[in-house]
Amino acid sequence: MDIARRIDHAMSAAIERAQGRHGVAPGRLAAALNYAVTPGGARIRPTLCLSVALACGDDRPELADAAAVALELIHCASLVHDDLPCFDDADFRRGKPTVHLAYSEPLAVLTGDSLIIAAFDELASAATRPEDALRALALVRLLARQSGMPHGICAGQGWESEEKVDLRAYHRSKTGALFVAATQMGALAAGRDAEPWEELGARIGEAFQVADDLRDALYDEEVLGKPAGQDAAHARPSAVEELGVQGAIRRLRDILGGAIASIPSCPGEAQLAQMVRLYAERMTPVAPARV
Amino acid sequence: MDIARRIDHAMSAAIERAQGRHGVAPGRLAAALNYAVTPGGARIRPTLCLSVALACGDDRPELADAAAVALELIHCASLVHDDLPCFDDADFRRGKPTVHLAYSEPLAVLTGDSLIIAAFDELASAATRPEDALRALALVRLLARQSGMPHGICAGQGWESEEKVDLRAYHRSKTGALFVAATQMGALAAGRDAEPWEELGARIGEAFQVADDLRDALYDEEVLGKPAGQDAAHARPSAVEELGVQGAIRRLRDILGGAIASIPSCPGEAQLAQMVRLYAERMTPVAPARV
Repeated sequence: MDIARRIDHAMSAAIERAQGRHGVAPGRLAAALNYAVTPGGARIRPTLCLSVALACGDDRPELADAAAVALELIHCASLVHDDLPCFDDADFRRGKPTVHLAYSEPLAVLTGDSLIIAAFDELASAATRPEDALRALALVRLLARQSGMPHGICAGQGWESEEKVDLRAYHRSKTGALFVAATQMGALAAGRDAEPWEELGARIGEAFQVADDLRDALYDEEVLGKPAGQDAAHARPSAVEELGVQGAIRRLRDILGGAIASIPSCPGEAQLAQMVRLYAERMTPVAPARV
Repeated sequence: MDIARRIDHAMSAAIERAQGRHGVAPGRLAAALNYAVTPGGARIRPTLCLSVALACGDDRPELADAAAVALELIHCASLVHDDLPCFDDADFRRGKPTVHLAYSEPLAVLTGDSLIIAAFDELASAATRPEDALRALALVRLLARQSGMPHGICAGQGWESEEKVDLRAYHRSKTGALFVAATQMGALAAGRDAEPWEELGARIGEAFQVADDLRDALYDEEVLGKPAGQDAAHARPSAVEELGVQGAIRRLRDILGGAIASIPSCPGEAQLAQMVRLYAERMTPVAPARV
């Protein structure tokens, strides 16, 4: 099965488990869980996770699938909560109304909470053999570290409520954390040491941030599926503001070059480098709708 | 160390870990985490969890402490999110302003999210010996099941957004789930089978619901530390409405009698029964301020 199909399959199974048999759980919340994770978008974090697991031999595909799904569930949960009226007050996400508009604000809060919990459940339930228990527990710890406080995406969001922001910590937590989790959890799921994989995740996260700044500055709402020009509108720090469009594109290429150079030695090293190159092409804006 | 001190000690350590070293994490969110879990109140779920663990021999106190803390973190997270303007819009909790009033609505959302994640982190980090990994993983699964969808407290809250409510599922999920988690996780942490402990948790949860209905009907805001008369005001189903005050008190005593009778055979059975009797006395309202 190719990576995209593995992710789709595992995501559907996870959402069905969280929804329960028809009628046993509150129906609107059950429907909101599915709404919040579809359509899938690029599924970039689980794809990176499975790519690393495959490069490392993928000897426990069920653990790798659970790691990929857990990452995407946490990511989707953070989007649902970030879109709430008290944060970004966003009306659209992935080209459709946000969860709090489609369902309600209480159900959006509960959807995020339920997806976070489902992520940890998936990891703990994937260790069907006693000898996989240590790996599964390490995956739980890694995901918790990159999601919560003091260093995960919750911390990243939390920096937005500070008067003095540590910009490096902000970006590292808000965007970088789940990319680091993706590479490290992919390696861990395949029985490798997580630590050497931190740099690859961190650099891809950094590249993703620059690419996001470029898209926000260059594309319109129709292409993005969400409001454009938000960095300028909210006076957020942005690579485009700092370096200009061409400078930001050069910076993006440099970071991805560094990412490829950082790939630890493993059986599928060459293929993984090829995948990062492919990402690089996809990430680099080519057809600006407005400049 | 007695149970209350064990809980205080483990809760403080967990919050300090989530806060991180001074300056590395966003300070207001770090402060809000501590605010949300203090003052401790009765800590009834972790107390029940440790009481069961002790009755079962408590051969891995670090796992039992983590289970107790994880339960309380999830409970506090649910209170913070339930108090949000889009749910109960509560101004006071435990006699002080709710987290969204003291800090902000975004920080209240993030506080809940961070506490949920910290709960799973505590469980996964408590298995310091490889041979404890299976127990820790089972604890993660149990907590996830009783917290999320389709059967946990998120599901319980979710029922409030349905037109047709399954009242039994609603109460079982919203109030009962964490009590079942408390007895089962206490047993699991001490290496026992969780299943036989479900009934004790379910019955104590039921008793707690009746006691809460009684308090809501009998006491005023000053005694409760939160608004009183909310069941009548929101036309919520209540044991007092159904059975009257004396009927509800009789029902409470019956349920607790059944709870004691359900305690599985274990080394500390008699002491645990004594503890439930003590709860029963504490739960039963004695000095109604208004009838």
